[in-house]
Amino acid sequence: MFEKIHHIGIAVENLEDSMKFYENTFNFKIQFIEELKENKVKVASFKIGDVNIELLEPLTDDSPIKSFLNKRGEGIQHIAFLVKDIYKTLEELKEKGVSLIDEKPRYGSHNTKIAFIHPKSTFGVLIELVEE
Amino acid sequence: MFEKIHHIGIAVENLEDSMKFYENTFNFKIQFIEELKENKVKVASFKIGDVNIELLEPLTDDSPIKSFLNKRGEGIQHIAFLVKDIYKTLEELKEKGVSLIDEKPRYGSHNTKIAFIHPKSTFGVLIELVEE
Repeated sequence: MFEKIHHIGIAVENLEDSMKFYENTFNFKIQFIEELKENKVKVASFKIGDVNIELLEPLTDDSPIKSFLNKRGEGIQHIAFLVKDIYKTLEELKEKGVSLIDEKPRYGSHNTKIAFIHPKSTFGVLIELVEE
Repeated sequence: MFEKIHHIGIAVENLEDSMKFYENTFNFKIQFIEELKENKVKVASFKIGDVNIELLEPLTDDSPIKSFLNKRGEGIQHIAFLVKDIYKTLEELKEKGVSLIDEKPRYGSHNTKIAFIHPKSTFGVLIELVEE
C-alpha cells in the first residue's frame, strides 16, 4: 500500500532558529523552504538518505501546526508515506473503516497531492499520504 | 553525521492490538518482535522502504515509554538515525553543547549500540543514535 516513508513532519515555533540548529549541529543540508498558504504552514525540508525531514512553522493562529504546538509543544507531528494512487488508497482505507481527515486529496508542497488519516484510527499517529 | 533514518518509534499501550491494526490496514509485514528487558520495552518492527517502524509497548511502570504514554498518550515517540561511529558522534555532539540523555551508548535491539539525545536540545524531538 505504501511505497516508502516520504517525510517526517516536525512542529516548531520558529523555523529560522530550528533550521540553523539542525544545519549546524547535525550538518543537515536544506533542500527547500516553501510557504504553503493553503495549509497555513511554512516548511523547511532536509533530505537524510531517501527520507525528508520537514520543519513546520505555523503561518496563522488557526494553522493545525499552531494547535499542535499549543497542545503538545514542539516535536514530531506526523509521518508521511508515499503512495502511487492516493484516490485508490483513500478508497481502500475508507472500506477498511479507517477515519480520514481528508476524504479527498488537497495540494501539498511541490505540487504533491496529500491527505491525512485521523490519529484516532492509527493508535495516536497522524499519518499523511503523499502522491508525487 | 547521520547515514540515514534507522527507525521511527511509536509508543503504544498494547502491542498485539496495534500490530494487528498496522498489518491488516496498511499491509505492513512484521520483521521481528523482541523484548528488551534492559530498556523496559517490547518492540514490534516493520520495514517500509529502508526505514523501520517500531511499535513500543512498556514492559514496566518505570519504562520511559510508560511515562511518555502517561504524559502524551499513544503516538510517535522518537526518530532514530544510523551512525557509523556512535562514540565519535556523541563526542562531536557534546562539543557542540548538545544535551545527551546517554553520554555512553547502551545496547538496543539486535545488539545495536544506541544513545538518546535530550529533546530540550533539539526543538522537542527525541533523537536516538544507532550503530549497527
